[in-house]
Amino acid sequence: MADGLNMSRRIRRTPYTDRIEQVGVRGFSVVNHMLLPKAFERSVEEDYWHLRAHVQMWDVSCQRQVQIAGPDAERLIQWMTPRRISDAKVGECYYVPLVDHQGGMINDPVLLKIDTDRFWLSIADSDVLLYALGLALGKGFDVEIDEPDVSPLAIQGPKAEALLSTVFGERIRDIGFFKFGWFEFEGTSQLIARSGYSRQGGFEIYLNNTALGPALWDRIWEAGQAFNIAPGCPNLIERIEGGLLSYGNEMTRENNPLQLGLEKFCHLDGSVDFLGLKALQKIKNDGVSSQIRGFVFDGPKAPTCAQPWPVFVDDEQVGQITSGIWSPRLKKNVGLSLIKRDYWNYGQAIKVLLPDQTKRAGEVIKLPL
Amino acid sequence: MADGLNMSRRIRRTPYTDRIEQVGVRGFSVVNHMLLPKAFERSVEEDYWHLRAHVQMWDVSCQRQVQIAGPDAERLIQWMTPRRISDAKVGECYYVPLVDHQGGMINDPVLLKIDTDRFWLSIADSDVLLYALGLALGKGFDVEIDEPDVSPLAIQGPKAEALLSTVFGERIRDIGFFKFGWFEFEGTSQLIARSGYSRQGGFEIYLNNTALGPALWDRIWEAGQAFNIAPGCPNLIERIEGGLLSYGNEMTRENNPLQLGLEKFCHLDGSVDFLGLKALQKIKNDGVSSQIRGFVFDGPKAPTCAQPWPVFVDDEQVGQITSGIWSPRLKKNVGLSLIKRDYWNYGQAIKVLLPDQTKRAGEVIKLPL
Repeated sequence: MADGLNMSRRIRRTPYTDRIEQVGVRGFSVVNHMLLPKAFERSVEEDYWHLRAHVQMWDVSCQRQVQIAGPDAERLIQWMTPRRISDAKVGECYYVPLVDHQGGMINDPVLLKIDTDRFWLSIADSDVLLYALGLALGKGFDVEIDEPDVSPLAIQGPKAEALLSTVFGERIRDIGFFKFGWFEFEGTSQLIARSGYSRQGGFEIYLNNTALGPALWDRIWEAGQAFNIAPGCPNLIERIEGGLLSYGNEMTRENNPLQLGLEKFCHLDGSVDFLGLKALQKIKNDGVSSQIRGFVFDGPKAPTCAQPWPVFVDDEQVGQITSGIWSPRLKKNVGLSLIKRDYWNYGQAIKVLLPDQTKRAGEVIKLPL
Repeated sequence: MADGLNMSRRIRRTPYTDRIEQVGVRGFSVVNHMLLPKAFERSVEEDYWHLRAHVQMWDVSCQRQVQIAGPDAERLIQWMTPRRISDAKVGECYYVPLVDHQGGMINDPVLLKIDTDRFWLSIADSDVLLYALGLALGKGFDVEIDEPDVSPLAIQGPKAEALLSTVFGERIRDIGFFKFGWFEFEGTSQLIARSGYSRQGGFEIYLNNTALGPALWDRIWEAGQAFNIAPGCPNLIERIEGGLLSYGNEMTRENNPLQLGLEKFCHLDGSVDFLGLKALQKIKNDGVSSQIRGFVFDGPKAPTCAQPWPVFVDDEQVGQITSGIWSPRLKKNVGLSLIKRDYWNYGQAIKVLLPDQTKRAGEVIKLPL
């Protein structure tokens, strides 16, 4: 049990927490009022190399599902996102920015279309359920909104497919990217998607039954021995190199999807009606004043980015790095930041101010790399 | 810095975190996406005795404010709570259960009536802002909803009034219980309420300006030396003995205010209209099937209650303790639990099943004690 984090019912354990403790978890974070394991025996760098070569099992139960079902389910979801939801087919995963009336980001979940009138939003760290519930009650939509007993377990890395095919059969190989199918486990039918918060490929098992958590963990752990499996968690080096955004870090309600490189998920031509349509149309017409970019900057290794690091061009602050870490592959620090329009071209020279007040030289780069 | 909790921008630091680290914080929890210090150099028991005798300074910035302002502000707030809001006067604090359409608890904040058309909800751990925003957008209410730069600092304990009178003047003594006034600090006007999450009396300073955090901390810390001040945090022993509930621990959306002993805050006679009125009227007519109670049970000291402990009468599970700890004053363990109707009378003998599978004898008691 980690010393630094006080436990209570309010910070919920997951179906896998007992097992996570058995394999030597060293620290947790909290996402959606639930534990997210963040460190095991090996360092973040060792985990990074392992993830790129083998396969890892991640307890991402904190990606809670907001289930929206009923005649108005699609209408409610469409009202929250600029992405055209009527295009989605049953069995598909959809990355959907959720926005407010000003186009500000509320969350950036993955939408799973379970049935024509039933959806799951697999959420980042904010209470999307309360937003959806408020909208539905205010508008009088005919929907049921709840949080089902679903706790995703991610299997990530180049050996993920080979491993899961030994557990769930060869049919696992037929799941397309960002699609899902149903697979038998202990007499139950479980949703498995080809998805996950890494660039190494893999799957997420949306286990719907807390009681089966230890059995699922054990089954994959045992089969995984032949594939050099290890416990893991979203890897910060791999995430930044991959340009994957994190709600609460790279974006808050102060930011809009056009700043975040999410324009391809924004249908602003009037073909869909959602909260924030007019606001986003105006932002698009005016042009955004800042946009997300990758950065590299000189060593030595930067510390953990617990507070944003200001980014400068000459004496002007032009951005702030919100996630940053040392990349052992690039032998440089990497980071993500919004940056002002005049300075966002690739190759732009910048300086990063670290908490120890040293300034490090670097440049704007294209991600993923 | 605590080892067990990984830091990032997503888990926000507070205006006081630098100072908290300087005085030796040993652990944090996370509430409303923000750090809540949970342990310093002394044990929970030592802190308990100190809190009862002297004065402590708590960083409770995580009690974020949801500001609702505009012509429909009162209407929106009334729609969320069974308590009659039109009774509140400017300058008063109101404990308000917030519910959904089924009467389920969304949060249990303190409402501060700042002006006739401007309110703050000082919230427990759920994104009330998103619920209020959804309701307002769905219903078309004319309100502005945001999170102002307000970070409460609690001064708790029997010497709190004497201490703050040396900092803010004798007028501090005139603030009535659950009322607030405005006081000068460094050329700014700051809200101070007589309130706090303990039974020992005290104040909460709703500092509106992050940049002034260290100066406020230092000023009170220095003045507090004469009063044996110490850093602290909501004390679990004192909270349970005082019968103070915690959202996420004693209650979730599965529970309604009538179960939680909050009937006096529920105006169900039709004089106020809110979401969940019909649901709560029905629950009241039918009678609740379980209700919150205090418990004592035999030693030795119980471990941290990270998962609910089942409560039995004979072989029937009749409740589950959601917060529990050893009371050094009572020389017994104390806890809080909902318990079924047939067993909720004071003096009822029960048994508590601990994680080590031992059963401890105890009884239902009246709180506070």
